[in-house]
Amino acid sequence: MAGSTLGSHFKITTWGESHGKGIGVAIDGCPAGLPLTEADIQEYLDRRKPGQSKFSTQRKEADAVELLSGVFGGKTTGTPISLLVSNKDQRSRDYGDIASYYRPGHADYTFDQKYGFRDYRGGGRSSGRETIGRVAAGAVAAKLLGQLGIAFLTYARSIGPVSIGKTPEELLRGNLPETRREILASPLYMPEPLPCQKAQEFLESCMEKKDSAGGIIECIITGVSAGIGEPVFDKLDANLAKAIFSIGAVKGFEIGDGFAAAAALGSENNDSFGIRDGKPAFSTNHAGGILGGISSGAPIIFRAAIKPTPSIASPQATINKQGEEIEISIHGRHDPVIVPRAVVVVEAMAALTLLDLIMENMGSQLSYLEQLYKN
Amino acid sequence: MAGSTLGSHFKITTWGESHGKGIGVAIDGCPAGLPLTEADIQEYLDRRKPGQSKFSTQRKEADAVELLSGVFGGKTTGTPISLLVSNKDQRSRDYGDIASYYRPGHADYTFDQKYGFRDYRGGGRSSGRETIGRVAAGAVAAKLLGQLGIAFLTYARSIGPVSIGKTPEELLRGNLPETRREILASPLYMPEPLPCQKAQEFLESCMEKKDSAGGIIECIITGVSAGIGEPVFDKLDANLAKAIFSIGAVKGFEIGDGFAAAAALGSENNDSFGIRDGKPAFSTNHAGGILGGISSGAPIIFRAAIKPTPSIASPQATINKQGEEIEISIHGRHDPVIVPRAVVVVEAMAALTLLDLIMENMGSQLSYLEQLYKN
Amino acid sequence: MAGSTLGSHFKITTWGESHGKGIGVAIDGCPAGLPLTEADIQEYLDRRKPGQSKFSTQRKEADAVELLSGVFGGKTTGTPISLLVSNKDQRSRDYGDIASYYRPGHADYTFDQKYGFRDYRGGGRSSGRETIGRVAAGAVAAKLLGQLGIAFLTYARSIGPVSIGKTPEELLRGNLPETRREILASPLYMPEPLPCQKAQEFLESCMEKKDSAGGIIECIITGVSAGIGEPVFDKLDANLAKAIFSIGAVKGFEIGDGFAAAAALGSENNDSFGIRDGKPAFSTNHAGGILGGISSGAPIIFRAAIKPTPSIASPQATINKQGEEIEISIHGRHDPVIVPRAVVVVEAMAALTLLDLIMENMGSQLSYLEQLYKN
Amino acid sequence: MAGSTLGSHFKITTWGESHGKGIGVAIDGCPAGLPLTEADIQEYLDRRKPGQSKFSTQRKEADAVELLSGVFGGKTTGTPISLLVSNKDQRSRDYGDIASYYRPGHADYTFDQKYGFRDYRGGGRSSGRETIGRVAAGAVAAKLLGQLGIAFLTYARSIGPVSIGKTPEELLRGNLPETRREILASPLYMPEPLPCQKAQEFLESCMEKKDSAGGIIECIITGVSAGIGEPVFDKLDANLAKAIFSIGAVKGFEIGDGFAAAAALGSENNDSFGIRDGKPAFSTNHAGGILGGISSGAPIIFRAAIKPTPSIASPQATINKQGEEIEISIHGRHDPVIVPRAVVVVEAMAALTLLDLIMENMGSQLSYLEQLYKN
Repeated sequence: MAGSTLGSHFKITTWGESHGKGIGVAIDGCPAGLPLTEADIQEYLDRRKPGQSKFSTQRKEADAVELLSGVFGGKTTGTPISLLVSNKDQRSRDYGDIASYYRPGHADYTFDQKYGFRDYRGGGRSSGRETIGRVAAGAVAAKLLGQLGIAFLTYARSIGPVSIGKTPEELLRGNLPETRREILASPLYMPEPLPCQKAQEFLESCMEKKDSAGGIIECIITGVSAGIGEPVFDKLDANLAKAIFSIGAVKGFEIGDGFAAAAALGSENNDSFGIRDGKPAFSTNHAGGILGGISSGAPIIFRAAIKPTPSIASPQATINKQGEEIEISIHGRHDPVIVPRAVVVVEAMAALTLLDLIMENMGSQLSYLEQLYKN
Repeated sequence: MAGSTLGSHFKITTWGESHGKGIGVAIDGCPAGLPLTEADIQEYLDRRKPGQSKFSTQRKEADAVELLSGVFGGKTTGTPISLLVSNKDQRSRDYGDIASYYRPGHADYTFDQKYGFRDYRGGGRSSGRETIGRVAAGAVAAKLLGQLGIAFLTYARSIGPVSIGKTPEELLRGNLPETRREILASPLYMPEPLPCQKAQEFLESCMEKKDSAGGIIECIITGVSAGIGEPVFDKLDANLAKAIFSIGAVKGFEIGDGFAAAAALGSENNDSFGIRDGKPAFSTNHAGGILGGISSGAPIIFRAAIKPTPSIASPQATINKQGEEIEISIHGRHDPVIVPRAVVVVEAMAALTLLDLIMENMGSQLSYLEQLYKN
Repeated sequence: MAGSTLGSHFKITTWGESHGKGIGVAIDGCPAGLPLTEADIQEYLDRRKPGQSKFSTQRKEADAVELLSGVFGGKTTGTPISLLVSNKDQRSRDYGDIASYYRPGHADYTFDQKYGFRDYRGGGRSSGRETIGRVAAGAVAAKLLGQLGIAFLTYARSIGPVSIGKTPEELLRGNLPETRREILASPLYMPEPLPCQKAQEFLESCMEKKDSAGGIIECIITGVSAGIGEPVFDKLDANLAKAIFSIGAVKGFEIGDGFAAAAALGSENNDSFGIRDGKPAFSTNHAGGILGGISSGAPIIFRAAIKPTPSIASPQATINKQGEEIEISIHGRHDPVIVPRAVVVVEAMAALTLLDLIMENMGSQLSYLEQLYKN
Repeated sequence: MAGSTLGSHFKITTWGESHGKGIGVAIDGCPAGLPLTEADIQEYLDRRKPGQSKFSTQRKEADAVELLSGVFGGKTTGTPISLLVSNKDQRSRDYGDIASYYRPGHADYTFDQKYGFRDYRGGGRSSGRETIGRVAAGAVAAKLLGQLGIAFLTYARSIGPVSIGKTPEELLRGNLPETRREILASPLYMPEPLPCQKAQEFLESCMEKKDSAGGIIECIITGVSAGIGEPVFDKLDANLAKAIFSIGAVKGFEIGDGFAAAAALGSENNDSFGIRDGKPAFSTNHAGGILGGISSGAPIIFRAAIKPTPSIASPQATINKQGEEIEISIHGRHDPVIVPRAVVVVEAMAALTLLDLIMENMGSQLSYLEQLYKN
């Protein structure tokens, strides 16, 4: 596996390091005929790029994407799509020290143990810049899913101890396009102004204390018809769990009621069925839209817990490569919280996972094959 | 993918339905030379089999395993290991009704939507019996990991609202073999007698109310050296998340401090490094033994949230295949809680995931290849 | 990979040894809704089973298949299909000697080098009995392909120096159902009586000399529409080459004109296009139905070279495990030629490969996805 | 699968079209610690690049490679290696006509059937330029194999009807480094001067007649220890067959005696064992170094049949997109024979396949795992 490839049908392979020549992704398996431009992808990358607010790293990167292959006449050709974002503002001198010691909460030590040495500049492959490949590929997946009527609403549910008040169900009952606009306009990608204001104050206090914060990202997916996901190992929730957990800094994942379901009774947790507008519908959505690993037609709802940024300027105890105990303070350009920029990464990973399983589902019934195969 | 195969190196494919001829698994990629008997596997299956206490289904199944291939002279040969558990006590008559309607909280509706029809007897492929293949294969993985000095401590952390008091760290500081014995002797696989007693009382009240309960399973893995797990998509925590979330009824997964980390400060959540007994060691283990997706050498600690059993005898609203709203009460042989029997399933999935990534790591350094390749 | 799994969509995993408890296969990814019985599979296995003529081993095996999962109400359910053939006539005593030395032309030495030891009884996993799993799975694939209008004509083109006279094109112009019946009725699976008679005489002379023979198997596939196969690595011809070459004893593979094309001129080898019956058609079929790795709509034609059976009763020089040079004569129950029994194995592998790529092709165009996805 | 990814351990994904921005490859799974520079890769690409002789296309491409990731301090880091060759001399105007019709022997028609449309400029993804990604990745694999003592001797065995005289065995008995130099110095990559001269004369006559030629490429691999290759589907010869057959224009593949073995007797074809220099050795090598799909320690020898270049200037019958019969003559910059430039492509594919299986073999014995796993 080696770990930089994801998916079986819409398969992506990402590459690149923080201070190398660039970051990229090759997408193999995108169906032919999807209208696609660099602008489609740039829109997603812009939600991830640094410098959108004072709560993100001051590294200057336009993160402009180049589409190198797989598109002809404005449409995908069915052959691999190669996307490249060149690195422009590498300041490797900031990272000279890192070579010699292991930053707490980072992958420095584990990379050295795994590979014998590491590209220490800006964290190398374990940098947050690695997610550029995910977001670029996710933009293509999301565009394709949009053609099928599938939409995402992804936002920061909480930053540190500050949480929004509305439940996903309440958001779903509101004006979704309007909510989506509010989220994109919010500096923290939060869908409610007051918690967003409080969260900013909390972050300012963190920065003053040379400390950092985490939070929870929530994602709602609408328009997913019933039947997506494979029984047993490639359940829709299992593949989402993997995809989301593969984002650095994620420490928890839950679907629907999640951990709360563990304390509920069966009679409380089951979503009973009924008929609404002539179609099967669930009275509640404790399950988060997935039953037996397969989408039920209800909105899919999941959450990811993001740990606080490990790079902090306050002093920390650690060891160096010689095995001596030392004290360090991390300087350089770091985000006091990565939650806002990680929102689009979560959405991208969800889109990639869902599209892969929708394509997988094409093989589920002989009648589908008979329908498509023209003898 | 199709979903019944897991792993890239130690690769398993499971098959079988609740009321078919049996359940089985083929393991491809088990290294040659591992001593292996049916008894090694039976020991694991016995922790999962029904009828161990009054809190599990009364279906009578010995779940005796047959080893059909891949072992010669008491050792694995390197070729596929096929394991078979025949079904003995299928009472399909209990399930005649199910054919016509969709049970809330079950995969009945989603299977029908996906495949056009389903094997409704006892839930078919979506039955808990499906996990027999996982546990049988996990027993082989766990035996192999044991040869490398890796051990598991898996238990019910909570049943419904009743939780044990000790933290994983406290359990690790105790007498591990003794704790392991206590867990195996406990009817609910809980490591503390008093909460176990309270949980039993809680379950009895659930059964009286024709209701069911869920809970949280915790797993501690010791002896994992630093360097296991792939950066980017095949992170150790990402693959664990998928493996655990692929178990039916899991609704949440977290590593180390998990969701609590989202509300912590960076200074609180980072585990600082020091030297203990001449070797690198962490002062705390908020990370749960994984940094950047790669094992750090500290014990790996994770939790899974299990929803309450969806089969309950109290009346529920649902629809039938004709799209009519009906009310049902589910009878038959069901577990009021599946947490105790799921403990070994979680352990099996963790063992399979970890072994797969340990094998993957063999290719991480050229020096390893030079060491093994005899020209 | 580990090597006992094949396919990405219609994925099979085989297991079992010559003198173990049995041989089997698990098929993951068979679409739901295919009518399937044990008789469908037995028909294929019967073409492979021993004892059909004096030119095959006298081991007595009915090779009766059991269908253990994945079928309900006479149709595939979309979940894994497990097939089992128990071994009945293992005479391991015949193979006691083999443990101590390496038979020329067999995998004895290479298995020992790879795994450190081997299951030597009847060749263990490297026995021809391993192909039972392939044929059983291939029967399911062939049945499904039949539903799509795809048919196979597979036969022995030559045995030793004796070859049939007709070209594939001539066979295609004849009465195909009649030819198929003739092939199935022929003791050597040859479509022409005279060469078949000569080949039998040749084989009798081989047997008298305690020697063995090889031959060439040819396969024609009709009804494959244009567009199947993936550019670059998963070309239809590349995947066929792998599938066929994975059958023990295959030493060569060619498509269309094959090796002869290497000596032809471009003007001779190109198949020009025209219109026949209002549809695009090729004037010739030097390409064997594949252009750029993708089916062209013309019949697919390929050949496999099968080496002579390595087990011969005449004396041979070899070494034992102690590294001493010795002379051996191989007794026991062996086929003087495996070509006739390998015909159905070739057909099975072709069916598996083709179906896998037909399923892969479902994801090639966005319009296909839009057609199947019901929002 | 989608088809642009190959390998399970040393996994490559190629991308790019003839007249797009460039061609590239991402390698995932290269072990850390291999010294690697752009020059290592350029050396391989230079053997493939156009304009080396009058027998190749006059398109001007330096095919200069850029190493974008995965190397730090001159060594591979274990993370993905991204390689890029920008296209410089695209003359798309040459290809305007092709949009409207289907060239015989090309993938024009099959791409249109598969995807609904195609990037017709220079053949798009089905161009010979696609092999740049293979050769670049193969250079890395070959360098790594060189560290293990494995070497390749690859050359044109025949061009059209002109063949070299020496057998592989005779070449192996000669001075290998010297032979390698001769091959690299030969305009047709042939190891014998006289046949090379005759082949050039033959090619000149082809060019005069506006025709083209094919040929046979032979590859010898030395230094492969016994035990490489997986039984059943991932046999070393099966994976080589696929890898080589995935190169456009290959129509046949054989190992050792190949098709000739089909007519031989068992007593002739078996390679008997003996002891030479105190080690097991084979008296002959009819098997081409592979027994039961696993390397035997003898040199690996295989051949690939390459069809004549389909682009010829003499008139050909074909159809256009409107389904009308037309006559065309293909102009532009084409190779009258691709065999010489394909020699390094064959070598690259063999290196990729072999390395992948060598890495796979690391998991074959428990003792290997015990040796590498440091608890």
